[in-house]
Amino acid sequence: MLGVDPGLANLGLGVVEEERREARLVASELVTTSPRMAQAERLLEIRVRLQAFVTAHAPHALAIESQFLSRQRDVSFRVGQAVGVVLLTAAELGLSVHEYGPSQVKQALVGTGRADKAQVAFMVRALLKLPATPKSDHVADALALALTHLQSRRVPG
Amino acid sequence: MLGVDPGLANLGLGVVEEERREARLVASELVTTSPRMAQAERLLEIRVRLQAFVTAHAPHALAIESQFLSRQRDVSFRVGQAVGVVLLTAAELGLSVHEYGPSQVKQALVGTGRADKAQVAFMVRALLKLPATPKSDHVADALALALTHLQSRRVPG
Repeated sequence: MLGVDPGLANLGLGVVEEERREARLVASELVTTSPRMAQAERLLEIRVRLQAFVTAHAPHALAIESQFLSRQRDVSFRVGQAVGVVLLTAAELGLSVHEYGPSQVKQALVGTGRADKAQVAFMVRALLKLPATPKSDHVADALALALTHLQSRRVPG
Repeated sequence: MLGVDPGLANLGLGVVEEERREARLVASELVTTSPRMAQAERLLEIRVRLQAFVTAHAPHALAIESQFLSRQRDVSFRVGQAVGVVLLTAAELGLSVHEYGPSQVKQALVGTGRADKAQVAFMVRALLKLPATPKSDHVADALALALTHLQSRRVPG
């Protein structure tokens, strides 16, 4: 299960798998691009890194935030461009796409839709039995999305 | 020169070329996707149609609107996804990307940044010597962007 926290400057990737109801970290990566690069080149960099990551770890499905509504419309527009590249790559590589809202992630991991980022990162660490919380918030968010998908599959309809 | 008016439901494409300072329509296409398709599948459809169009008509450069700031942030986010696919494809196929704002297009074609859509479509028809204005507003906007790029190259620095 691949979780993606999309962004142009920082895009978090995390793959987790489940064995006997225990989640395990397979791999994670932070893709960064410089604002000094042209927009199209940044998207191409994201594309190449994401393709390599998926090829290496072969997840079957992708979890991503269903919305990104910044107060700055320009930010929504630019993050949307990164999301477009992620969704396109998922479709081309045959990954099913599952969308979760921010409060669904918090509810699934912490038990309340009002949890803060630190609580989510704490639960990512606990569920994956990591020695520390991920250094990058974006990687933590990506892993949280992947874990949300695993949790949601367990809940009876 | 390829102009793109990006959108998810309707994406306009138009290629124009210039010979002895006369612009000529090479090809245009309206790419439509259904809201009943999954988002990732819509982006893949846009991708495939855009790749085929570029391969068929071999433009060297792409002109696109530099911003899309809908009052609805969700619209900015979703149009951004289509723009991401367009820019990625441009980078992969080696097209240079040129961005123009809506008022630049109006200024270049009509001579005032306050022109309305009908005036822009009228000038697209006149400059390309078309028998009628394009049926699709999205195709008209795509051609207007391509023509804006040609015009802007003529203006001394």
